[in-house]
Amino acid sequence: MEPDTAARIAEWRRQVESALDAALPADPAHPGHRVVEAARYSLLGGGKRIRPLLLLLSVEVLGRDPADAMPFAAALEMIHTYSLIHDDLPCMDDDSLRRGRPTCHVAFGEATAVLAGDTLLNRAAEILLAACCREEGPFSVQARLRASVSILAASGVDGMIGGQALDLEGGERILSEPEIESLHRMKTGALLRAPLAAAVLLADAAGPRADALLRLGETLGLAFQVQDDILDAVATADALGKTPGKDQVRGKSTYVTRLGLETARARLAGLSADIRTILAACGDGSDASGTCLSALVGYILDRRS
Amino acid sequence: MEPDTAARIAEWRRQVESALDAALPADPAHPGHRVVEAARYSLLGGGKRIRPLLLLLSVEVLGRDPADAMPFAAALEMIHTYSLIHDDLPCMDDDSLRRGRPTCHVAFGEATAVLAGDTLLNRAAEILLAACCREEGPFSVQARLRASVSILAASGVDGMIGGQALDLEGGERILSEPEIESLHRMKTGALLRAPLAAAVLLADAAGPRADALLRLGETLGLAFQVQDDILDAVATADALGKTPGKDQVRGKSTYVTRLGLETARARLAGLSADIRTILAACGDGSDASGTCLSALVGYILDRRS
Repeated sequence: MEPDTAARIAEWRRQVESALDAALPADPAHPGHRVVEAARYSLLGGGKRIRPLLLLLSVEVLGRDPADAMPFAAALEMIHTYSLIHDDLPCMDDDSLRRGRPTCHVAFGEATAVLAGDTLLNRAAEILLAACCREEGPFSVQARLRASVSILAASGVDGMIGGQALDLEGGERILSEPEIESLHRMKTGALLRAPLAAAVLLADAAGPRADALLRLGETLGLAFQVQDDILDAVATADALGKTPGKDQVRGKSTYVTRLGLETARARLAGLSADIRTILAACGDGSDASGTCLSALVGYILDRRS
Repeated sequence: MEPDTAARIAEWRRQVESALDAALPADPAHPGHRVVEAARYSLLGGGKRIRPLLLLLSVEVLGRDPADAMPFAAALEMIHTYSLIHDDLPCMDDDSLRRGRPTCHVAFGEATAVLAGDTLLNRAAEILLAACCREEGPFSVQARLRASVSILAASGVDGMIGGQALDLEGGERILSEPEIESLHRMKTGALLRAPLAAAVLLADAAGPRADALLRLGETLGLAFQVQDDILDAVATADALGKTPGKDQVRGKSTYVTRLGLETARARLAGLSADIRTILAACGDGSDASGTCLSALVGYILDRRS
């Protein structure tokens, strides 16, 4: 990645962190302080901020100011974080390690972790509504409302939660390959398509560039999950920041456990090639915004955790 | 209650049930079917529908058509239901009985119950946003947005979730009377004030009648909780539909465990008298809408479960 591009992405990441910090401020005098503390522990615990960055850089590719889209980016990351907290619970995936630290329920207890997740989802919805409430703004009220609806549709039972439900079933029986694809399309894919779709809706964009961004969301969502399955199989806990090898141990149906490591790797290579083709259609290759988005996608596809 | 009034309230309750049924339809072919089934089990399992009815009848008192406020009423009840599901979890209150039936996690398992709660909160937010998206409507877009914001503020960490957090702490140490009041004001009170506040915001109402409705929300929220504490102490499981006597067993700080049953009863009588005074200011006593709201409040104060 070019130093300029890396610096731009780092600066947007810093602004996302700052928006997240402000979205749920700590106040030791607040009656719900411990729950807020638990939510902040997970929210500000060093995520890669892939989803908010995808949204911001896509908005830029569409010729709009990413700063105006910050509430939507923050809400997406809060929803992603709440899903991790609930997913890590003993009754769900029972994980004790996340981003290299004890999971929320290990650090704060199960009851507080349940409420911390609830708090993040509730606050995300509040932030979306507050963004729609502002009388003036670079995006129309209807565009903001449509983007908010698309984000919550992605996180609901037709998206992420539906995928988690299918994942629970996958712990009980062997899923078919189409079922695995449907699981991933919902569980991980929905929240990776959402930033691209929200950017297009906010900018009220149409045409080849908007279409390419939507296709990028589809393909990247799938690639991300194949890669997750591969990392679970081959990475160390140290590199991954969470417990590896769980899929195999639990007999979970993943691309790797069902198709084998080599087939999964070939699948990922094919998807990465598709993504490069799509990225070329997202911009004319000469503008800095297109370069940033391509660099971010490259970073996502190269990730080791 | 007059038969006419009872029939009107029953008809609105039926319409709430029907809106809730439509809000989260069952589809056995859906990948998240089991989670939806669990959410519907709790959502359509025979609640009193106090919160949605308070909203609808207050809208009517303000001279508007309650039918137009149905999405907001449905969202409130979905939020209330999700909070019960999560509150009943083994890591929270560990309850096996609710509304006379096994709790959600007993019937569907803990993981599915966590996701069912998440689904209801997510869908409630979606319903609020969808109601704001409609281009035309009897309430202005800004009024609908403000009502939605007030509902989600009531269910968040400054309201209901904050109260639940304080409740968790109350399991570990003795709370002072002001802390108990603050706990109840947030945990139960916030979602009982919300329907009154949302009605006022939707109708964009101001003046003595609007003020009286807001005061009614405040006072009713407090009365409701004192009554809950009394019922926990004196009712049978059969009448209550949930496990009674838990507060005492767990050493929880409630009005009854801290002030004694007689003081709590005196407190409730005082609040009920205040409520009758406030109700007189909500209408001129001659209109059917005021009669309905008064009857509903009377029903709430007379409840045995």
